[in-house]
Amino acid sequence: MFKQTEGLPMGASVAWADVLASLPFNCDGLLPAIAQQHDTGEVLMLAWMNRDALEETLHTGRVCYWSRSRNRLWRKGESSGQVQLLVELLLDCDGDTLLLKVNQTGPACHTGRRSCFYNAVRGEHLTVISDPLIDPAQLYANPVTGTAP
Amino acid sequence: MFKQTEGLPMGASVAWADVLASLPFNCDGLLPAIAQQHDTGEVLMLAWMNRDALEETLHTGRVCYWSRSRNRLWRKGESSGQVQLLVELLLDCDGDTLLLKVNQTGPACHTGRRSCFYNAVRGEHLTVISDPLIDPAQLYANPVTGTAP
Repeated sequence: MFKQTEGLPMGASVAWADVLASLPFNCDGLLPAIAQQHDTGEVLMLAWMNRDALEETLHTGRVCYWSRSRNRLWRKGESSGQVQLLVELLLDCDGDTLLLKVNQTGPACHTGRRSCFYNAVRGEHLTVISDPLIDPAQLYANPVTGTAP
Repeated sequence: MFKQTEGLPMGASVAWADVLASLPFNCDGLLPAIAQQHDTGEVLMLAWMNRDALEETLHTGRVCYWSRSRNRLWRKGESSGQVQLLVELLLDCDGDTLLLKVNQTGPACHTGRRSCFYNAVRGEHLTVISDPLIDPAQLYANPVTGTAP
């Protein structure tokens, strides 16, 4: 399926239903999904989607992942209120990675930071390069559910 | 190790050697690595790194992945000449994903396109949203090795 789109010119398309039926989910039924803030380009996080999460995200426009630790669908922001609205969903050349252009409310990271990528290798050290926008204790005590994840 | 950096303020650091010794490589000994063009923010590709690839990349400043299809180190651009120079290497909050800010020469994608993410889900179709910068036949007939990958 992806060999087919490699040679197509910009603007050409194939049926999404056929692509979905042939996506190369890994042995756990998952694909990695990168979330990027659509207007600033900031890479916010990487999580995983199974077929149900992908279909729900496209259907509702609100990003839903598969939580490997909780072993269930994870509607981003269901505990914290910090939702991700889908702007565009892209697939890479061999269809085994998703790129979600999103509009992220507040912090994407459970630490309260905007992005999960706040640790930079600098010389012989790993250095923290951003501070939380919100105290994580507040993040999980919001009115959406009032509970921690 | 990553729980330790969660609560640190911006500018604080821990020893990289200790972090490296505790990185949560998956069962294949790999971590996913997102490559992003450092100045434009464009997400170029996702590939995988083992510990050797990560250490070589930090040591040389030229990005080296682990090729899962060829089962060996893959010095990006070794066949195509389209190298990635490392600008900054970041880790996410639980240390299981790498974000490489790079300076990419020419196309990152084996199809000759700048980014591997050129397939967009639009309505009931998957639509190609960019054209190759270079004919892939030329990409793998360059003076670096003169051979296809």
